[in-house]
Amino acid sequence: MPRITLLTDFGTADGYVAAMKGVIASIAPAAVVEDAAHDLPPGDVHAAAWALGRYWRLYPPGTIHVVVVDPGVGSARRALAAEVAGRTLVAPDNGVGTWIFDEAPPTRVVAIENPAFLRERVSRTFHGRDVFAPAAAHLAAGVPLVELGPPLGEVFRLEWPRLGFAPDTIRGEVVHVDRFGNLITNVTEDWASFGAVRVAGVDLGRPRRTYADAEPGELLALMGSAGFLEVSVRDGSAAEQLGVGRGAPVEIRKGGTS
Amino acid sequence: MPRITLLTDFGTADGYVAAMKGVIASIAPAAVVEDAAHDLPPGDVHAAAWALGRYWRLYPPGTIHVVVVDPGVGSARRALAAEVAGRTLVAPDNGVGTWIFDEAPPTRVVAIENPAFLRERVSRTFHGRDVFAPAAAHLAAGVPLVELGPPLGEVFRLEWPRLGFAPDTIRGEVVHVDRFGNLITNVTEDWASFGAVRVAGVDLGRPRRTYADAEPGELLALMGSAGFLEVSVRDGSAAEQLGVGRGAPVEIRKGGTS
Amino acid sequence: MPRITLLTDFGTADGYVAAMKGVIASIAPAAVVEDAAHDLPPGDVHAAAWALGRYWRLYPPGTIHVVVVDPGVGSARRALAAEVAGRTLVAPDNGVGTWIFDEAPPTRVVAIENPAFLRERVSRTFHGRDVFAPAAAHLAAGVPLVELGPPLGEVFRLEWPRLGFAPDTIRGEVVHVDRFGNLITNVTEDWASFGAVRVAGVDLGRPRRTYADAEPGELLALMGSAGFLEVSVRDGSAAEQLGVGRGAPVEIRKGGTS
Repeated sequence: MPRITLLTDFGTADGYVAAMKGVIASIAPAAVVEDAAHDLPPGDVHAAAWALGRYWRLYPPGTIHVVVVDPGVGSARRALAAEVAGRTLVAPDNGVGTWIFDEAPPTRVVAIENPAFLRERVSRTFHGRDVFAPAAAHLAAGVPLVELGPPLGEVFRLEWPRLGFAPDTIRGEVVHVDRFGNLITNVTEDWASFGAVRVAGVDLGRPRRTYADAEPGELLALMGSAGFLEVSVRDGSAAEQLGVGRGAPVEIRKGGTS
Repeated sequence: MPRITLLTDFGTADGYVAAMKGVIASIAPAAVVEDAAHDLPPGDVHAAAWALGRYWRLYPPGTIHVVVVDPGVGSARRALAAEVAGRTLVAPDNGVGTWIFDEAPPTRVVAIENPAFLRERVSRTFHGRDVFAPAAAHLAAGVPLVELGPPLGEVFRLEWPRLGFAPDTIRGEVVHVDRFGNLITNVTEDWASFGAVRVAGVDLGRPRRTYADAEPGELLALMGSAGFLEVSVRDGSAAEQLGVGRGAPVEIRKGGTS
Repeated sequence: MPRITLLTDFGTADGYVAAMKGVIASIAPAAVVEDAAHDLPPGDVHAAAWALGRYWRLYPPGTIHVVVVDPGVGSARRALAAEVAGRTLVAPDNGVGTWIFDEAPPTRVVAIENPAFLRERVSRTFHGRDVFAPAAAHLAAGVPLVELGPPLGEVFRLEWPRLGFAPDTIRGEVVHVDRFGNLITNVTEDWASFGAVRVAGVDLGRPRRTYADAEPGELLALMGSAGFLEVSVRDGSAAEQLGVGRGAPVEIRKGGTS
């Protein structure tokens, strides 16, 4: 019973996602299809890479993760299928796999090109239906990865912002804002305890353990569930309260009190 | 393993869709239930018919497509179950099947009326739970279509806007606006190459092949994945940029350059 | 084939829900996972309890209902697993089960604490992934409820607003506003026929049977599908038209005409 997850920016109301599901059901009727999300910001490859990073490895080996956030559809960008740590990614080669490839090296990557495993007529604007869904379904139905197309050399990766180190300060930035308005940074656990956190000109003191350590409406820093420092407001939105988003600088200064 | 798809305007947060799924799970526990969409604009039968048209035939024969966009719930409008090209539509008789019935003639249509296959007590405001979900589940569980109720003569169809033909001009209109702000028209591929496209007073030249043939932010016309001419903005929203929506006129004038 | 439903306020775009699904798939690959909703208003325990009340009992016995609307995550609030009428609720002990427990007494309730059935490392901010998903999956995989942790005495319940009775008037209030702007009250069917309905200073006369008994755009009262009196606008939103929401008072005055 192979399992396929779907992550897109298609929304659902236009029937595009259901079209993908129909194609899969016709090719691999026994595959279990699970929605990851379809409401990613249109064309936001960074957001797709982040979201995928949150769940890809929690699924069991054998899972096929399909990602279609594809502003370059119809251009020269390639379609890829990649084996990573026993899971398979099926997606445009535009960086949506950056998080996966940073966590584990792909053991095999091919360009999806074999017309036997695409829809008979491939449109220039909807590869979710015509390329990615049939490729994933054929994999689920037992087609070996290497049948999908020739090996693909280097995959495209997004640049992940690096931490900046000064004697008394670490500089990071906000890499994702979630539904609750939490500002998730690129500061890993190792550095979160370095000192006091400052973001958007506001001093938050040292990270605390959990939301309940703050008063309702209060800003706090804490280690988030993804393993990165987050800035949050208890029962509120830090993004709204501070008026900042992705890319906002964050500082951790040595010492500092909570 | 029968498969049931669900398309509604219920949203999900009120538990209405989960109520339908619960009813189905109780009657046909082995049925596979897939969400098509639940965020259709409330009561928008045209949008439902359009979305359904995008996926109904991509699913394999045997699939049961449930559509509940039903502004007339509780009125005299009938509930129907229709066999079309091996798939089954279960929906109010209000035009949501227009696209399906235009593509393939229904081989059998009944009015869902047999109380044996409805919930014991049918509310006047929630036929998704009390009529359509149980009817679909009983079909999935093996009940023959004809058991659901008496034959239903003519089904209600929405009027699909026709093209207007003048010696040098074809007149069509926007029939759907998708999540990306693409303006999808009723101009089929046969006519798309007739000449240059004009919409909302803006000349777009001849259709191009794909988004990548335009600059970011540029308007273009192209053949869309549904087989109709679309007006798009690369990496943007044509609906926003032009300030038009469903019903906006589109012209194709003979000749013209790209 | 055990079935698990998921109700959260996580949205889907951040990958949190997919993380839960991945955890479940790894522990109980044969479980059928169904989305109830993920777009509940953040932290709105009342809305979660209402939505769950709409579907929990429509699912067949054996179903495991997971609810993660959890503003108190990381605080001292407990996690519970409760057997009620053959179904199982897995949720924070914060009142999301109020509707269930009002309809049927739980036959067994435990606090989820046994580390054998949690993720190896439990974060302080994401118990959906680290506590509720693995607990539900282990139940689906056959672990007896009592293995999850010690019995939990009293569960936390939200206060449900009571009706007020005067000789000629019944006073209730709006307890939920749905996607369509219907104002759902706490007035049960027994009292709905007591007289004429008044809300937000507007007299609606006696309840009618269904939307079609009103003109498009007209306000009306009627018995809703949940068994409570609702205030609606045909083809419109009563919440918008009246400018009121949850908590708004509703009166039924003896006599009155429709």
